[in-house]
Amino acid sequence: MKGLLVIAHGSRRAESNDEIRELAARVSVQAAGQFDHIDCAFLELAQPSIPEGIQSLVDKGVQSIVVMPYFLANGMHVAKDIPAFLKEASEKNPQIQLSVSPYIGAADVMPSLILDAAAKAN
Amino acid sequence: MKGLLVIAHGSRRAESNDEIRELAARVSVQAAGQFDHIDCAFLELAQPSIPEGIQSLVDKGVQSIVVMPYFLANGMHVAKDIPAFLKEASEKNPQIQLSVSPYIGAADVMPSLILDAAAKAN
Repeated sequence: MKGLLVIAHGSRRAESNDEIRELAARVSVQAAGQFDHIDCAFLELAQPSIPEGIQSLVDKGVQSIVVMPYFLANGMHVAKDIPAFLKEASEKNPQIQLSVSPYIGAADVMPSLILDAAAKAN
Repeated sequence: MKGLLVIAHGSRRAESNDEIRELAARVSVQAAGQFDHIDCAFLELAQPSIPEGIQSLVDKGVQSIVVMPYFLANGMHVAKDIPAFLKEASEKNPQIQLSVSPYIGAADVMPSLILDAAAKAN
């Protein structure tokens, strides 16, 4: 079984964390067999943490996990913090295949999305 | 003249801030007359700051500015910090029309982008 873990920063604002949970639920609806389980996890300030999120997928019987950094730029969190968590998770679960996707900000479509959003300004 | 200010968080990692500057340059290329000037600014940790970014557009003769929060969720930065900066900017420049676009994470296409990125994991 294949799992996807969407990793977001986490916020002091509960609504913001709920927004990420709802996003993960929308991803699940669209995943159409690409993944058996899709969850989110938070780098800080919210639960589940990254280790908890990975463990939860492992507990569901997932053997292969794609980690998706839901971050806009290749800053410290993407370049250092998330890889450190994954190294730890990999050592703890050597039987699990862990892979990392590009972070969301690397999507080529971002300039168009920015202009689309800008057109909705009020 | 119309300006667009893309506001990112800012990072301790210089490459991450440069990535946002390059993104703003790519947006400029695609803007095709939608805006006369497109710049980026940073909430913290990098320059220009939000007040500096707004001032720079004002100095270029822009009368109307769309502010685009380049953030993924409606957390403290989007809900409180950016509006506070804009209130200040508005009071300082009452002659400028300031409007705010949806933040990038509000784009309907995000679940698809997450799955696209996930498909590129390695």
